[in-house]
Amino acid sequence: MLLHQYKTVRQLSEEICLPLETEDYVVQPIIDVSPPKWHLGHSTWFFETFVLKPYLPNYQEFNPQYNFVFNSYYETLGARVIRTDRGNLSRPTVSQVYQYRKHVDEAMHELLQQNLADETIEILILGLNHEQQHQELLWYDIKYILGHNPLFPAYADEHIENRIFTIVQQADWHYFPEGLYKIGYQEDGFCFDNELAPHQVYLQPFSLATDLVSNQEYLNFMETGGYQDFRFWHQEGWDWVCKNQIKAPLYWHNINNQWQTYTLSGLKNIHLHRPVMHISYYEAAAYAAWRGCRLATEFEWEAASAKLNWGQLWEWTESAYLPYPGFSKAPGAIGEYNGKFMVNQKVLKGASVATAAGHQRKSYRNFFHPHLRWHYNGIRLAK
Amino acid sequence: MLLHQYKTVRQLSEEICLPLETEDYVVQPIIDVSPPKWHLGHSTWFFETFVLKPYLPNYQEFNPQYNFVFNSYYETLGARVIRTDRGNLSRPTVSQVYQYRKHVDEAMHELLQQNLADETIEILILGLNHEQQHQELLWYDIKYILGHNPLFPAYADEHIENRIFTIVQQADWHYFPEGLYKIGYQEDGFCFDNELAPHQVYLQPFSLATDLVSNQEYLNFMETGGYQDFRFWHQEGWDWVCKNQIKAPLYWHNINNQWQTYTLSGLKNIHLHRPVMHISYYEAAAYAAWRGCRLATEFEWEAASAKLNWGQLWEWTESAYLPYPGFSKAPGAIGEYNGKFMVNQKVLKGASVATAAGHQRKSYRNFFHPHLRWHYNGIRLAK
Amino acid sequence: MLLHQYKTVRQLSEEICLPLETEDYVVQPIIDVSPPKWHLGHSTWFFETFVLKPYLPNYQEFNPQYNFVFNSYYETLGARVIRTDRGNLSRPTVSQVYQYRKHVDEAMHELLQQNLADETIEILILGLNHEQQHQELLWYDIKYILGHNPLFPAYADEHIENRIFTIVQQADWHYFPEGLYKIGYQEDGFCFDNELAPHQVYLQPFSLATDLVSNQEYLNFMETGGYQDFRFWHQEGWDWVCKNQIKAPLYWHNINNQWQTYTLSGLKNIHLHRPVMHISYYEAAAYAAWRGCRLATEFEWEAASAKLNWGQLWEWTESAYLPYPGFSKAPGAIGEYNGKFMVNQKVLKGASVATAAGHQRKSYRNFFHPHLRWHYNGIRLAK
Amino acid sequence: MLLHQYKTVRQLSEEICLPLETEDYVVQPIIDVSPPKWHLGHSTWFFETFVLKPYLPNYQEFNPQYNFVFNSYYETLGARVIRTDRGNLSRPTVSQVYQYRKHVDEAMHELLQQNLADETIEILILGLNHEQQHQELLWYDIKYILGHNPLFPAYADEHIENRIFTIVQQADWHYFPEGLYKIGYQEDGFCFDNELAPHQVYLQPFSLATDLVSNQEYLNFMETGGYQDFRFWHQEGWDWVCKNQIKAPLYWHNINNQWQTYTLSGLKNIHLHRPVMHISYYEAAAYAAWRGCRLATEFEWEAASAKLNWGQLWEWTESAYLPYPGFSKAPGAIGEYNGKFMVNQKVLKGASVATAAGHQRKSYRNFFHPHLRWHYNGIRLAK
Repeated sequence: MLLHQYKTVRQLSEEICLPLETEDYVVQPIIDVSPPKWHLGHSTWFFETFVLKPYLPNYQEFNPQYNFVFNSYYETLGARVIRTDRGNLSRPTVSQVYQYRKHVDEAMHELLQQNLADETIEILILGLNHEQQHQELLWYDIKYILGHNPLFPAYADEHIENRIFTIVQQADWHYFPEGLYKIGYQEDGFCFDNELAPHQVYLQPFSLATDLVSNQEYLNFMETGGYQDFRFWHQEGWDWVCKNQIKAPLYWHNINNQWQTYTLSGLKNIHLHRPVMHISYYEAAAYAAWRGCRLATEFEWEAASAKLNWGQLWEWTESAYLPYPGFSKAPGAIGEYNGKFMVNQKVLKGASVATAAGHQRKSYRNFFHPHLRWHYNGIRLAK
Repeated sequence: MLLHQYKTVRQLSEEICLPLETEDYVVQPIIDVSPPKWHLGHSTWFFETFVLKPYLPNYQEFNPQYNFVFNSYYETLGARVIRTDRGNLSRPTVSQVYQYRKHVDEAMHELLQQNLADETIEILILGLNHEQQHQELLWYDIKYILGHNPLFPAYADEHIENRIFTIVQQADWHYFPEGLYKIGYQEDGFCFDNELAPHQVYLQPFSLATDLVSNQEYLNFMETGGYQDFRFWHQEGWDWVCKNQIKAPLYWHNINNQWQTYTLSGLKNIHLHRPVMHISYYEAAAYAAWRGCRLATEFEWEAASAKLNWGQLWEWTESAYLPYPGFSKAPGAIGEYNGKFMVNQKVLKGASVATAAGHQRKSYRNFFHPHLRWHYNGIRLAK
Repeated sequence: MLLHQYKTVRQLSEEICLPLETEDYVVQPIIDVSPPKWHLGHSTWFFETFVLKPYLPNYQEFNPQYNFVFNSYYETLGARVIRTDRGNLSRPTVSQVYQYRKHVDEAMHELLQQNLADETIEILILGLNHEQQHQELLWYDIKYILGHNPLFPAYADEHIENRIFTIVQQADWHYFPEGLYKIGYQEDGFCFDNELAPHQVYLQPFSLATDLVSNQEYLNFMETGGYQDFRFWHQEGWDWVCKNQIKAPLYWHNINNQWQTYTLSGLKNIHLHRPVMHISYYEAAAYAAWRGCRLATEFEWEAASAKLNWGQLWEWTESAYLPYPGFSKAPGAIGEYNGKFMVNQKVLKGASVATAAGHQRKSYRNFFHPHLRWHYNGIRLAK
Repeated sequence: MLLHQYKTVRQLSEEICLPLETEDYVVQPIIDVSPPKWHLGHSTWFFETFVLKPYLPNYQEFNPQYNFVFNSYYETLGARVIRTDRGNLSRPTVSQVYQYRKHVDEAMHELLQQNLADETIEILILGLNHEQQHQELLWYDIKYILGHNPLFPAYADEHIENRIFTIVQQADWHYFPEGLYKIGYQEDGFCFDNELAPHQVYLQPFSLATDLVSNQEYLNFMETGGYQDFRFWHQEGWDWVCKNQIKAPLYWHNINNQWQTYTLSGLKNIHLHRPVMHISYYEAAAYAAWRGCRLATEFEWEAASAKLNWGQLWEWTESAYLPYPGFSKAPGAIGEYNGKFMVNQKVLKGASVATAAGHQRKSYRNFFHPHLRWHYNGIRLAK
């Protein structure tokens, strides 16, 4: 069963890349985007480094230099390619990366036919969840690479964005009373260390919108001067707007007085009844301020989640990404997984159409810096 | 009584600057530091703009161009001198700024002899608290300006740093049980909008150190390689250490193998039994990690404050600076006071020797970006 | 004959790229390097824009958007991809670029079977010389891309660097008397506008070294502290050394106390009797100063060229790249070819192993900014 | 007589600063501008370091730390304050700098009553010329400091700019035949090392305008879109225009549709018949290109100077600042005077109203980077 799960996850990464040209695997237009071949290599390196080398006797490393190339933030394991350099590396080639995947997969198949210690299974499960996180990033990064090419090439006709539904009605409000709520992962399966430990949080009464904000609603904000009025913005948000001359969500282009947006099917007119997406935390917060509302905290969101319709777009929260009470880093390189990012980032809740099914849980804590927009995200109002 | 209070506060700003040379009032060595003459002018501009112009009939504005020069972040009120430019302005001269103060003070004396509406009193009280905040910044900035001059001039022999006590014993722990605690300002006097509204917070059991970390303890961290081991650091903290080649707290200089530090009395040997100060959040968190501990949240700190010996150095907390439940910005320019900074900053609790007596309350929320070090701050461990 | 010439030049560009992987065509590790596929597309765009569109009736443009992608500095012709963005473009693909070349080549073959006006021939000849210049850049850029990959892949076994000879003897001096010398292109064939018009220059007596500086000689400079002593350097050169921590020529790596250098065959030990190469003007000038010598002016070099052994490495001169007396820009886009670069660059004389045979003439004026090193260059001393 | 000359030069530096407020002495709004107190200290440090310490027995150094503060580019003499930091130094105070001047002047008076060796006289004369150069920079820097203050304070009513004459007529042309001309300083007095050695230069026939370009003429260029048409610009000039959004000369402000300019008497309307000034080399060259002309070379200018009306504004030339044939740096710190700047700068000829009378000679070579504009400069056309 683990073998099946392993194969399914590993195969999906390659399927996501199927429509790509070799050249699309290589580039890194901004620091936050990684070249697709790097994702394919890095997730493979994880299994080689943390599973095969320690647990498969006689495992033959594919290429010792790959440790340098495909290591990411695991500083415990030696020098790594600095992030801004990833897009300058033409080698290893895409074909070599696929060979690397094949080499590691074959060894993993061998390993997975043996009886495995709990410790091995645990790290293997982490590796699969890790690869699923990189699958989501693959979607973001592929869209960015194609959507910032002056030729605006389509990814394909069939893709995840087709799953995003239409909002038919004006959002209403769900009310939640004050009281103690239980927060954090409380089940038996896998979760990331940042979702632990479950603990009580006291919440004041609050209300969350039943639906995400639509493109039509966001256009109203734009057209009434939302991007020109500093009163709605955090100081840093306003500086970001001015410095980067932000006037619309990412991927929006005003062509002959018609707002169009790059989608995985190419440039399309804005669909007014779909949820607005690809906005920064600053924009989400400014929009909420303009509406006289606010964003939810991650605790409110989690407490309310059973009542919400979620899972299409990550929802920016007001919460900073901080350790839960009693959080502690695992020892060694694995300990670098989450804790080291717990400053200056914002929590997003709720999953997107790019998120693996298994990650669609209410306790999942996604996090990004407040100025980033290339992930699938949207706005839910709170008050 | 208001008049007396006004005079006392206004006078203190000028007393702090008494030992300065004219030239010391002018420079801005880094973006976070403002020239002392700017503080003197800006706090005066506050009274002129928000009190005299609206409430004193026939008030004669001192100089309309000063609105441009001494406005800070109040974007509602028109173009302002961008922060990095403050140190390039030789005019208005220091003497003109003192004349400006005199002009406004005389008008304020006139106003304060009248019966004032509650609204007027409210904004006046805010102006006094605002000036007291700038008095604290004056201390920080004067120390930075003199302490980064290659001649290391002393400020004076008598000064606030003399009030910092010696730690005689190893810190012990105070234990606090889990439960609901009331957080926020609950009294009748003045407080800032960010301390409201009072609300309940549920805390897990926690312990706080009885004393701050000493220079001796911090030296141990330095000497066992704390600045060279990324495992103790946040990713952004580690990048900050590497990029800026940080090896010790701000103001520390290793001269002939002896650690010295710039104090307001000039360069002195490190006093091992005094609390370590002038460190960034990143350093505070790394030190705590090295000790196997953590920093307190602002809620833990406030709940525990009655048991703590505090008020000498601001204490970095793990908490991000975020709105309390129900927080809302005041309308107009005054509304820009606090809310717009509520992203990417860390809360500090507890006051310092540079803090006005009236600001030494447990609900006060100070905040700085995590890399800043020039304010009076220290480390209290939690677990 | 023109057709033959056209085919030969066009074919060579593709032959240079033959050993490349698709991925190697795409990346742009620094702003000065262009992706190989861009060179292939840009030189093709030149023929399409300046020859086919104006002179071949019914010519069908391959793709109008390519004008945007493959335009370089010809601002007359509309928006262009800013240089730093070239390495972010995965599309058009390498295969599409080769199709573009094929499409243009077929149309050019058609055109070249007709009787052509002088004007058409002139621009066509310019296009061929232009492509030859990009062939030289292809060599530089391919070396940079492979030589800055952590895997240090070899380009091939057979390549232009094999033509660089060994210096067997200590350099001697050629003496030239003062007097009037004729400078500039004085023959009948093609030359670039910057080589015109021929004119007289009065030179003081001077001497040039018979040979280029060897790696052994340059190592002496390094080992006696040449990179640590500001007295040998221009102020800007010294700032460049300090800021970039320059300690050796480009591509040199000190591995286990042995200097190695990346060559097109991979990493190799330094060959002490080969000429030093890949140094900046700053380094060339500092080396000369250390030897108590100087670099030649471009006029001295040209006057002396018949006596020199040259053609393997471009030789930095002391001369700034400036217009010759009577220089005037051609009208229209072609006029942007050379004149607009005539500030803040240094002239190099003499050609390299990467230079087309037809460009190996004494009047040729190559030019680069003084800090650049990735072209094939070396040092000849003057006094 | 030397004593008298010394007194006269030294006094002038202080007279230039007489109208300044203490605060004006301190600031450094851009890296190219130095605080006036730095000029006063640096020129004093020159005499202390190169004259008093070596040649006056028992000379008592004023303050050993001043060597660090007032050293400029003389890297031979140890660590120096990096240029961007000069404006952050409030100490030494202005009053201390004047004491420093007094201390050094008294010692110099003592020295100057003795019989001096030729070597001592030579360095003393260099020191006086050096201070005169800094007097010219004082004018530039004072104008920049006051002219970039939002209050636009006047320097005084009487000042050097009053000496700039009105151009009454359209410029005509002076013709000069081709031939050998003698260039460089050929007299007996003092000159800088960069004016040597005198040597012959062969010039093609050329013509220079009799007058500088007027504000009216330059306005024509502006109003016909000169700043919007890249064809007139060097590539680097165009990048500079776009990046900095340059639309007019430095100090020009369009206020209510009237061009005004900051002068040492404050903001004034543009005087159409005065020469345009405070433009960069890029602007000068673009203007010339728009007129179908060019700038002179420094050799043409020097050869023609007897026929020209010059001395009010430095005139940008096309020439790069390079060593004359046979130029060699003096040994030791003095050798850093000029040679180290001989890359990436442009020569200006002819002196300005801010130039010391003794520096108004045809062989004087002034030099600035091509983007700089804060010195007194103008445009003379050539063809």
